[in-house]
Amino acid sequence: MDILHRIGVRTSSPEQVWNALTTVDGLARWWTEDTTGSAEPGGTLLFRFPPVGGFDMEVVEAQPGERLTWRVVDGPAEWVGTTIDWRLRQDDGWTIVLFEHRDWREQVEFMNHCSTKWATFLLSLKSLVEDGKGAPAPGDVQISDWH
Amino acid sequence: MDILHRIGVRTSSPEQVWNALTTVDGLARWWTEDTTGSAEPGGTLLFRFPPVGGFDMEVVEAQPGERLTWRVVDGPAEWVGTTIDWRLRQDDGWTIVLFEHRDWREQVEFMNHCSTKWATFLLSLKSLVEDGKGAPAPGDVQISDWH
Repeated sequence: MDILHRIGVRTSSPEQVWNALTTVDGLARWWTEDTTGSAEPGGTLLFRFPPVGGFDMEVVEAQPGERLTWRVVDGPAEWVGTTIDWRLRQDDGWTIVLFEHRDWREQVEFMNHCSTKWATFLLSLKSLVEDGKGAPAPGDVQISDWH
Repeated sequence: MDILHRIGVRTSSPEQVWNALTTVDGLARWWTEDTTGSAEPGGTLLFRFPPVGGFDMEVVEAQPGERLTWRVVDGPAEWVGTTIDWRLRQDDGWTIVLFEHRDWREQVEFMNHCSTKWATFLLSLKSLVEDGKGAPAPGDVQISDWH
C-alpha cells in the first residue's frame, strides 16, 4: 500500500527542486523548519514537528536531478520501514515530481491523513521554487483535528 | 490500489458536508461547476471538466450523514469500474471525512496525479463548508502541466 502524488513545478531545470529535496536548508523551507542532520547519501535526516514528534530518514539513494530515496528509520510505528521515493524529470518548462511513500503495512486512518498532508507539503515545495516561499511546519496548512 | 485521504471540517454536524456531497448544487460548488444528473441512490451524476472530459458516477449507496459510495460508469479508462467511498463521522466540532478512491487496476502516473488533485478538491470542500467558498473547476488549483 502506497501513497502516490504528482506535481509539476514551473522551472527550466530540475536543479531547484533537487536542491530543495537534498539540502537541510531546502527541506526546512517547505516541509518543516526543524530539519537537521545529513542530506548526503548514507546520512540521516531528522525532521521534527514540535510538539508532536517527527521522522528520521536515511538517505538511501541520490541520483542528482533524477531520483532520491529515503528510508524511515525512526518515528511513528506506521512509518518505520517505509520508503519515500522521489523521481524528477524535465518536460519542457516543468519539473515533474513523482512522489511515492511506499510499503505501508496497514491501511490505517493515519495513512489517509498522511496522504492528504503530503499533498499540501508538495504544493509547499512547488510554491517555494515558483514563488520563493513555501509553507513548512509550524506554518503548514492545517487540514484537520490531527493538524 | 487505492487513493486515500482524510480531512476534518470545522462544523457542528455532518449535515453541511453531506449536502455538499449529495446535491448537484453542492457538488458544483467544490468539485466542478459543470455537475448535472441525479444525486439520488441509483441515479447517475455527470461531472464535466471542459474541455478535457469528465466522469459519470452511479450513486450506489447513501446512508445520510455517514456513508456515500459512487461507482464510475464512464470516463477515462483508468477510472471506469473504480469506486469512490466517503465516510463521515462527527468528532466534537469536526466532521471527519474519510475518502477512498478504490480498486485502481494499475499504478499509473495518472493515479499519482489524481491523488494530489483529490487532495486539492477535498480542501475545496473544506473551504466551502467553513468559509462559504470552494474552488471548483474551472477555478480549481492547478498542480501541474496536467492541470
